Amino acid sequence: MARIALDAMGGDFAPQATVSGALLALGELDAAHTIQLVGQTAIIEAELTRQLDGEHKALASHRPRISIVEAPEVIGADEKPGAAIRGKQNSSMVVGLKLQAGGQSDAFVSAGNTGAQMAASVVVFRLHTGLKRPAIATILPTAKQPIVLLDSGANVDCGPEELTQFAWLGSIYAEDILGRANPVVGLLNIGEEPEKGNVAAKEAHQLLTTSGVNFIGNVEGRDLPVGACDRGPFDVVVCDGFVGNVVLKFYEAIAPAMMGTLVKAGIDQKQLGAALAHLDYSQYGGAPLLGVRGISIISHGKSSPKALKNALKVAVRAVESRMDEHIGRRLQPSEEAAS
Amino acid sequence: MARIALDAMGGDFAPQATVSGALLALGELDAAHTIQLVGQTAIIEAELTRQLDGEHKALASHRPRISIVEAPEVIGADEKPGAAIRGKQNSSMVVGLKLQAGGQSDAFVSAGNTGAQMAASVVVFRLHTGLKRPAIATILPTAKQPIVLLDSGANVDCGPEELTQFAWLGSIYAEDILGRANPVVGLLNIGEEPEKGNVAAKEAHQLLTTSGVNFIGNVEGRDLPVGACDRGPFDVVVCDGFVGNVVLKFYEAIAPAMMGTLVKAGIDQKQLGAALAHLDYSQYGGAPLLGVRGISIISHGKSSPKALKNALKVAVRAVESRMDEHIGRRLQPSEEAAS
Repeated sequence: MARIALDAMGGDFAPQATVSGALLALGELDAAHTIQLVGQTAIIEAELTRQLDGEHKALASHRPRISIVEAPEVIGADEKPGAAIRGKQNSSMVVGLKLQAGGQSDAFVSAGNTGAQMAASVVVFRLHTGLKRPAIATILPTAKQPIVLLDSGANVDCGPEELTQFAWLGSIYAEDILGRANPVVGLLNIGEEPEKGNVAAKEAHQLLTTSGVNFIGNVEGRDLPVGACDRGPFDVVVCDGFVGNVVLKFYEAIAPAMMGTLVKAGIDQKQLGAALAHLDYSQYGGAPLLGVRGISIISHGKSSPKALKNALKVAVRAVESRMDEHIGRRLQPSEEAAS
Repeated sequence: MARIALDAMGGDFAPQATVSGALLALGELDAAHTIQLVGQTAIIEAELTRQLDGEHKALASHRPRISIVEAPEVIGADEKPGAAIRGKQNSSMVVGLKLQAGGQSDAFVSAGNTGAQMAASVVVFRLHTGLKRPAIATILPTAKQPIVLLDSGANVDCGPEELTQFAWLGSIYAEDILGRANPVVGLLNIGEEPEKGNVAAKEAHQLLTTSGVNFIGNVEGRDLPVGACDRGPFDVVVCDGFVGNVVLKFYEAIAPAMMGTLVKAGIDQKQLGAALAHLDYSQYGGAPLLGVRGISIISHGKSSPKALKNALKVAVRAVESRMDEHIGRRLQPSEEAAS
């Protein structure tokens, strides 16, 4: 049983998309799971009523599984993260996270201001002992199987220790959420030889070799679309948040650009859409901020109801698999041995 | 009139691809241009004879425009650059570059060991005064127009000054080779706001604002496939060689991966190939190492005859447009004013 808090006010299409995403998720999740819509009660209540009388009439039976948690303030997409979370302690973002810290909720999902969500998650939950930085873990669709890319934007300047910790965080995510046993980890680099790359990558390669993760060595840009290098497939790719963010946004934009070109060339749009359905990001919905003592799922500001539904499902899997506990334990192997 | 030296022994398919590329180029270039095939004379001679008796019979009239320059040694693709150029002063790579330094050639093209070509180019030509590092400038096809991406792999750790110099190098390349007037330059970053990015990118943004280049500000990964950001199209994108190399290899691999998926889904391969022809890298053939006092064009080790033909044509354009002179002048504006 999981109680998932959703920032009802977060994202470009809130509250329509958030309320709709919550109803769709409840329609697919086991009956034991519940959703807490956090935000301005009157607005949420009105939107819920409208949708349950309208497009989601068929989901009306799930209404009792929704509770509304009042949060009078909203953090805007363009607000500076630090100032926003200090100044708006009653925002849906901060209230939603504190609900979990106080034991009244099991996970938090938001499509709002990403910087504010990261900052507030670190402040409210704190990092696991021994961890230097949290990382955003994003799923990349490939020709073979989806892979985990991290960090995809939380840290722009990373040292080798952080990259090595990201390898652990990504491994646990791949195990718990994607169901991969003993996930294979690659280090994103500009050549396969250990001596290739910038200072951080070269040192990270050395650290990863003896870290205990299932390290396949360096992988290159050309290996990402196939999810495999010459030495075999991989499940997790580690890089700093600058490179990860560039790659992720680049990838997200290529499929639509290519689709546009191909449709103009007279190729049937429906056929294309079906063939490239595996590249649809909304099926993954949200990327967890890994490393904080809690579950905080970051969704794209432009998330559709479908994307939010899937983010809520990711949150449930994270709770059920006890991902956060596994991360805490893996980062403190001595405690694990002692327990 | 340009005399282009080609490393006849360089690349995975040499000397077949190099000799063939040279003949194809001569068939398309003005009669005043000549090619120097640098390498083991007997091997080159035999391959030339074979092709002129065979597949390139129709190009036999161009034979007088080819000279062979003996170079008994060959640098292998896997040799360490530094040791290779010190130990093999009679290699086709070093001999070909020295030909130009000695005034007997105007440009050098190689599909051989890229690291060795970069190192040897810097040693033989030296850098232009005031320049910190050379950069590899690669053409990226986009949905709108081809753009210049640099650095795409020469420098893995770059500071803000280098990034700013790359902006100048890329601008001159876009002007001279792509024919763009007053080229628009973007800084690859993880957000459009000036304060976004890692330390180097943030400082580079400031420097670029007052540098005199036609700076459009930060561009993001999502802007690359379209060659435009919200503020308009751009001609040049600047980044460090780590990010540039990852992006470039990623891009090169995506079209084939997607084509494979679409063909499997039953979409006609020929129709796809025609629609995506603009993504074919072999049409650009080679990427100049910008910043050295000379023309050194780097081609992919897997270059086809067509790719090498196009690299030779890029070399001719670089010579005719006096690109190298423009770079030297732009880096020393005071001298330009005084001359």
